Amino acid sequence: MTPENLAGAGSALGISSTYIHQAQDAQREWHRRIAHLLQQRKLPEIGWSDTDIETLLLELARMDSNNFPGNCGVGERESRIHSQLVYRRHFGLGHGIGRSGDLCEVQPKAAGSSTLNKLTNALVLDVIRQMGVRSCQDCFVVPMATGMALTLCLLALRKLRPHAKYVLWSRIDQKSCFKSILCAGFTPVIIELVSKGDQLDTNLTEIDQTILKLGPESIACILTTTSCFAPRAADDLVGVAKLAQSHDVPQLVNNAYGIQSSKCMHLIEEMGKIQSNHTTFVQSTDKNFLVPVGGAIVAGFDKSWIKQISQTYPGRASSTPSTDLFITLMSLGIQGYKKLVQERKSLFQELRTKLHQVAEKHGERLLETKGNPISMAVTLSRVVDPDGQGKQVSAIGSMLFTRGVSGTRVITGKDEKSIEGLQFSAWGSHWNGTQTPYLTAAAAIGMTSKDIDLFVKRLDKVLTHVMAPKTHVANKAC
Amino acid sequence: MTPENLAGAGSALGISSTYIHQAQDAQREWHRRIAHLLQQRKLPEIGWSDTDIETLLLELARMDSNNFPGNCGVGERESRIHSQLVYRRHFGLGHGIGRSGDLCEVQPKAAGSSTLNKLTNALVLDVIRQMGVRSCQDCFVVPMATGMALTLCLLALRKLRPHAKYVLWSRIDQKSCFKSILCAGFTPVIIELVSKGDQLDTNLTEIDQTILKLGPESIACILTTTSCFAPRAADDLVGVAKLAQSHDVPQLVNNAYGIQSSKCMHLIEEMGKIQSNHTTFVQSTDKNFLVPVGGAIVAGFDKSWIKQISQTYPGRASSTPSTDLFITLMSLGIQGYKKLVQERKSLFQELRTKLHQVAEKHGERLLETKGNPISMAVTLSRVVDPDGQGKQVSAIGSMLFTRGVSGTRVITGKDEKSIEGLQFSAWGSHWNGTQTPYLTAAAAIGMTSKDIDLFVKRLDKVLTHVMAPKTHVANKAC
Amino acid sequence: MTPENLAGAGSALGISSTYIHQAQDAQREWHRRIAHLLQQRKLPEIGWSDTDIETLLLELARMDSNNFPGNCGVGERESRIHSQLVYRRHFGLGHGIGRSGDLCEVQPKAAGSSTLNKLTNALVLDVIRQMGVRSCQDCFVVPMATGMALTLCLLALRKLRPHAKYVLWSRIDQKSCFKSILCAGFTPVIIELVSKGDQLDTNLTEIDQTILKLGPESIACILTTTSCFAPRAADDLVGVAKLAQSHDVPQLVNNAYGIQSSKCMHLIEEMGKIQSNHTTFVQSTDKNFLVPVGGAIVAGFDKSWIKQISQTYPGRASSTPSTDLFITLMSLGIQGYKKLVQERKSLFQELRTKLHQVAEKHGERLLETKGNPISMAVTLSRVVDPDGQGKQVSAIGSMLFTRGVSGTRVITGKDEKSIEGLQFSAWGSHWNGTQTPYLTAAAAIGMTSKDIDLFVKRLDKVLTHVMAPKTHVANKAC
Amino acid sequence: MTPENLAGAGSALGISSTYIHQAQDAQREWHRRIAHLLQQRKLPEIGWSDTDIETLLLELARMDSNNFPGNCGVGERESRIHSQLVYRRHFGLGHGIGRSGDLCEVQPKAAGSSTLNKLTNALVLDVIRQMGVRSCQDCFVVPMATGMALTLCLLALRKLRPHAKYVLWSRIDQKSCFKSILCAGFTPVIIELVSKGDQLDTNLTEIDQTILKLGPESIACILTTTSCFAPRAADDLVGVAKLAQSHDVPQLVNNAYGIQSSKCMHLIEEMGKIQSNHTTFVQSTDKNFLVPVGGAIVAGFDKSWIKQISQTYPGRASSTPSTDLFITLMSLGIQGYKKLVQERKSLFQELRTKLHQVAEKHGERLLETKGNPISMAVTLSRVVDPDGQGKQVSAIGSMLFTRGVSGTRVITGKDEKSIEGLQFSAWGSHWNGTQTPYLTAAAAIGMTSKDIDLFVKRLDKVLTHVMAPKTHVANKAC
Repeated sequence: MTPENLAGAGSALGISSTYIHQAQDAQREWHRRIAHLLQQRKLPEIGWSDTDIETLLLELARMDSNNFPGNCGVGERESRIHSQLVYRRHFGLGHGIGRSGDLCEVQPKAAGSSTLNKLTNALVLDVIRQMGVRSCQDCFVVPMATGMALTLCLLALRKLRPHAKYVLWSRIDQKSCFKSILCAGFTPVIIELVSKGDQLDTNLTEIDQTILKLGPESIACILTTTSCFAPRAADDLVGVAKLAQSHDVPQLVNNAYGIQSSKCMHLIEEMGKIQSNHTTFVQSTDKNFLVPVGGAIVAGFDKSWIKQISQTYPGRASSTPSTDLFITLMSLGIQGYKKLVQERKSLFQELRTKLHQVAEKHGERLLETKGNPISMAVTLSRVVDPDGQGKQVSAIGSMLFTRGVSGTRVITGKDEKSIEGLQFSAWGSHWNGTQTPYLTAAAAIGMTSKDIDLFVKRLDKVLTHVMAPKTHVANKAC
Repeated sequence: MTPENLAGAGSALGISSTYIHQAQDAQREWHRRIAHLLQQRKLPEIGWSDTDIETLLLELARMDSNNFPGNCGVGERESRIHSQLVYRRHFGLGHGIGRSGDLCEVQPKAAGSSTLNKLTNALVLDVIRQMGVRSCQDCFVVPMATGMALTLCLLALRKLRPHAKYVLWSRIDQKSCFKSILCAGFTPVIIELVSKGDQLDTNLTEIDQTILKLGPESIACILTTTSCFAPRAADDLVGVAKLAQSHDVPQLVNNAYGIQSSKCMHLIEEMGKIQSNHTTFVQSTDKNFLVPVGGAIVAGFDKSWIKQISQTYPGRASSTPSTDLFITLMSLGIQGYKKLVQERKSLFQELRTKLHQVAEKHGERLLETKGNPISMAVTLSRVVDPDGQGKQVSAIGSMLFTRGVSGTRVITGKDEKSIEGLQFSAWGSHWNGTQTPYLTAAAAIGMTSKDIDLFVKRLDKVLTHVMAPKTHVANKAC
Repeated sequence: MTPENLAGAGSALGISSTYIHQAQDAQREWHRRIAHLLQQRKLPEIGWSDTDIETLLLELARMDSNNFPGNCGVGERESRIHSQLVYRRHFGLGHGIGRSGDLCEVQPKAAGSSTLNKLTNALVLDVIRQMGVRSCQDCFVVPMATGMALTLCLLALRKLRPHAKYVLWSRIDQKSCFKSILCAGFTPVIIELVSKGDQLDTNLTEIDQTILKLGPESIACILTTTSCFAPRAADDLVGVAKLAQSHDVPQLVNNAYGIQSSKCMHLIEEMGKIQSNHTTFVQSTDKNFLVPVGGAIVAGFDKSWIKQISQTYPGRASSTPSTDLFITLMSLGIQGYKKLVQERKSLFQELRTKLHQVAEKHGERLLETKGNPISMAVTLSRVVDPDGQGKQVSAIGSMLFTRGVSGTRVITGKDEKSIEGLQFSAWGSHWNGTQTPYLTAAAAIGMTSKDIDLFVKRLDKVLTHVMAPKTHVANKAC
Repeated sequence: MTPENLAGAGSALGISSTYIHQAQDAQREWHRRIAHLLQQRKLPEIGWSDTDIETLLLELARMDSNNFPGNCGVGERESRIHSQLVYRRHFGLGHGIGRSGDLCEVQPKAAGSSTLNKLTNALVLDVIRQMGVRSCQDCFVVPMATGMALTLCLLALRKLRPHAKYVLWSRIDQKSCFKSILCAGFTPVIIELVSKGDQLDTNLTEIDQTILKLGPESIACILTTTSCFAPRAADDLVGVAKLAQSHDVPQLVNNAYGIQSSKCMHLIEEMGKIQSNHTTFVQSTDKNFLVPVGGAIVAGFDKSWIKQISQTYPGRASSTPSTDLFITLMSLGIQGYKKLVQERKSLFQELRTKLHQVAEKHGERLLETKGNPISMAVTLSRVVDPDGQGKQVSAIGSMLFTRGVSGTRVITGKDEKSIEGLQFSAWGSHWNGTQTPYLTAAAAIGMTSKDIDLFVKRLDKVLTHVMAPKTHVANKAC
């Protein structure tokens, strides 16, 4: 409604000008907020109400051809939506994002969808910078989860480096990440980690030697990871960047749930100062921004490289991950997101403290893993394990799940795993040498203090149940 | 609510047993319908109401761990959803589909999401069969649009045929399809079409010779297309299948919007009878089922091959395309979908008749393209074209768009196009030899008679505007 | 969004001006439609989409103080809404309608709610006129169902006629209507109907005599009814108006579901020509406009009188009935509503034809009730009735209900009823003299042909079950 | 979904039994919660999620005939709902509440709507008791705002006391309350308040004398008020009850927004101990429970009397006020509501403290009104008032409103008011003798500390603007 509409309403319906003036003020303020958002393309300080966000989405939808009054469609793809239930959940936006040539390009028939897409990418860039990667130059939301987004980056790297066959992979026992290499048709070269005390760190020496051995041109990139399960630490991105830069090999970072951690973001910022060219970091939308699974963010320090990746994608894509992210970011505002991140940080300490107490009570240890800002691990060395195969140990995971605890991982150190012909010992622990079983837990964004309390109580009960009678034990993990 | 709850409500609140019995009957009937759906996994004859569909989705969501009362999450991915607006549009389903190993696998924490995913795939299989591909053995919804879904199939083919470098591509001037080959890292080998009268057909001879020349093992697959813009016909899938089978090269069919056409589905069924092994056909969810852009369906005649493709995908994915499709299919029922398909068929004839009239009025011709069941083309040979570069001709497209007609394509025959180093003449026309300009229009599912009326009127006006004074002309298209 | 916002979006986000211009056109068209609606205050010819209606409601809500950004409330009634679920279902509108003095007055804090209220009343006035009561001068939606709305009118009549004690009531066996008199504190004077053939008609003679007997000033009004169950006919409003006018007694018409019938509306229009002063007709929103129960429309030919009624109401009221009506009317458009009314008319004939057939088959009769345009009655004279108390007959109603038929009424002619001390014979039949049992059914707006088919089939089965062996019987109803 | 459905889903779709068992547990827990709610009919301790509430509403709707699969309607009122937007906002519930005879009765076609209605009444009864009126025996939600609900009670009193003509009204300057008497057709007898210091109290002496003068049988009831604007105190309900009981005159209490105040609730509880027979107290749903305007709660200590009132209402009514209340109460839980009430209490102190500071700064006074637990008043004696008519003073209200402060009331003491022939001096102040102008503000439920801060700042500015140069003044209010 325009202020003119409102004035018209007033006189036509006999509503006094005082009330109409106030309504006009409110309406002008609304238009001003939208103009500000479009001009600044930054996350507002204070989040918007759901109604305001929804109204904006409905207004954007009005800009798409499928919602034009009097439009007639004679193409094969006119964004006709049959179900009203589907129409509503998409706020009338049906054209998706991108076009055949580029995920970030404007769609001819869909000025509204295109605005939403571009705006969301701009807001995400703002958040990435505010969370610590100040030098980030560009990013885009890709409507595929992290694994497939890594594959997309690798497919772009293939075009960049047509002679490359290998991807150097600093081991992280997460199947999606490993499979993203295979899916892209590269041969993974596994760089085993090195153990320092309880913690598992990047093996810079082996990376260097492997580059020399295989030859830099044969290597598409070095694939490193920040956020991961303890006792693995975030990779030494800076160390890797120095090597990578000297050999002119790109680094691709799996920063899956690292935006929520200032430490991970700091590592990335520092890495970018050393090597910005063709460096890419990829993160999940659901794990960092509390939206449903389905999107990832591809970001980097080099605008033209990020554009090349978005141009690799053939065709259009779902706008749902962008829409979910847009809604969530607009709803939080930058203050809201920073508050969530801050809370997570303090819950991480709370979780460490309480897990330490439970561990001690049962004669176990909380591992020392300073390099991991999100996940932590407690040894399970005293669990009765009659057959030596860790059955009883791994049962702890399902015992916890049955008691309503989700998200823990129990590592027995006994799992042999083969993925498309490649063998891993002690799968899940990121390290062939793992001996002592352990359990991991994470303090991730969106967690509450109540989650910790419930978890610790239930873990205590389960451990009491499975533990051998207590004796003095000095645990050495991994 | 269970019948017991209802009985309880009755006696507690003083509601007479007659009404309670009726309510119980309604409730039992509801449970019976759900049981039937889960057991049969076929599309219901008659569609369900939006409320019933939504209630079922909410019940499925209740089966996911993020909605368990008393659940505590200590993982990095707990499907926490911050915004209520986002939560609602996903009906509380946040875990996405698939897991690291396989798009079709069950998720540990998400029995509801997994049920939805599996059920949708089963319903889609039912539809594909009912629409004519009776021998289809398996299919799955992949939350990426058609182009990227073709890339996924090609990446799976790479694993199957590690020595392959080429994809034989029966030319279709649609950028996404071509780029899907490049994205997957293959070298496209363009098989130019042959002209038969107005129509452009598959060049079987050249396909055969190219296979022989390059060697079958070097070829990942032959990529053919059914649904396309006239005057191109659907590819001769059966002819290609015979060649492909004899050389043991798989065929990958881009059936983008072919489910809506019994002709395209018949071609696929016949193809499957000749070569079922590793044959794949891919279709868009939005173009066939009137949902927003974002999903594709990968289908085939060979269960284990389809499974291999789904296992190629690394990680989870958005459940939105499956959800949209589930809602739409359940809302239509098989009768509803068949009705839409039937209407499309008769609107195709209506569009032909009316376009023929307009064409004649302006001294133009409707091209004879019997092999294309969806799209049609009208010559624009009499449009004044002073500079011979077709500027005036191509302006017709924007003139129509400005007048609210979306979906036509104007082909001047003058467009030179280069995609990642490969050159195309007369881009958009599928054929280097195109001389006469033309305009295409399509009768696609969801179109209405009103669309045709508006289009034909507006086209008439635009042609009147741009046409040279009428003289006797015998047009020869392409 | 304003056109300026859009231009800003275009340049800021790199969206080409062509698409932005189209979006601006769409936006201007949207503002133009709103302006037109507010200026004309007539129902649009063609209905609006749900999204457009919802967007308009959200924009109206933005005009209410509870949605002003930066508002602070220090009153006891600030339209704070706790639940988001409640907020959403009211589109953010919380202030209700009316103020202490008048249901139709503007609320200080709620320009949006007030606009919605006034606009709805204007649209309803337009519909009433278009449906035949051309001379209607004013009307308003009152958020109470018909019975309580009649009470409100009676309470206004009490103020108008402070010496009145009686309401003359042309008998209609509907409890709410009768109770509305008692609730208002008047003494009902029952005017029994007269039977003409099958049909029951208004007893003008008795009305006249009663007025003379009691004295006009002692009578608050004559309460008549149009829409009713057969075999009662719509009251002879014109005849009553002549008497009423001559004695200066107002007429109050219970036009409960009469807007859907051109016949009822015609009667009202003709009545208004004879007596417009203090004449009131009341109708249900749910029965005429397919919305949930909860509202009524008070209308008349005399603006100041209608205003007096609205001023009788003390305080504010729910805006839900107005909102439901607004949505439904805007969604239908005048064409949509007229189509529904037209369909009803032809379904009335269909129902008569098919009921006639079933009746004949079972040796019963469809009563001749030309004066009732909505309801009809079939005799049940041959139903076995061993005890002569009609138990078997009245069981037919529940047998039908159990078989999924709702809305029939079975009249045995045996029901004695006492309401607050007043006695009625053959309750339900509007007439003490009813002998032959019968069943009524109605062709009301929103009914479908399928409803008729199902009903007739089920009725046939039930009658087959309960009928005495067929013999030749000549029925005489009532 | 039943546990059997789930088991079926598991085996049919290949979902492992572990996940299915967990889903079954969640489902059983859900059914258990519903059963508990229906059996106990008490507000849950902890509120439910919006999704759970909505699912329950959808399940209730399934029990109504309009949602039965295979139902055919041949009545005039079948709860057909045309607009999907309307259908959704009512969760499919369309039959409203009550039936012709009784607002609280079960509807034949609508077991679900009836359950919702009865359950809501039960939950409200629970809240009223928990908030302090332990002896409350029955209550019901009436879908009319407080004023009209008072009228309904008065109409019921008319039946109870057929010879009564008067209502004794302890003056409260709120138009709705006064008009409720006129609407019901009674003659109000105004009992002026007495001033005690700053505060205005009930004039028990005059009530007693008036009863004696008019005779008890001629009096329908004594209408008192608890929640009101300062400096009026809540009426002395106990004192009135003693008089009322001795004369056998019922008391009707306007407890508009008193549920939120333990003090008001205590007064009512104590009153009930003295006189329970035919005593009624009425309260607003929106003001006490943060729902949109539209409902009131009629409650009392005498089940049969409350039933008589609900039976006075003729016909059905909107279920929206009950639905809003049900959603809000279920969403809050008893803990949530108590927390809101607790917060209000402490904000009341905060508002007093801050208003006191502002008042002092400007040489004004916060009035001493211990008997009013919600509203407070600040003198405006120093405002420049050149014409002595209070224009400048009353401008303060609009100045505040323009600055985004809603809910204050400015009383000049100069307003003469005539309502339907009755005259009031100093209207708005509850007292003819008011001399000093003042401004009221209230700490009502749902208010936040931020509201107070903004208000006090803005008030300070406005006062600075309008004040005469400060001199030493001793204010005496009223």
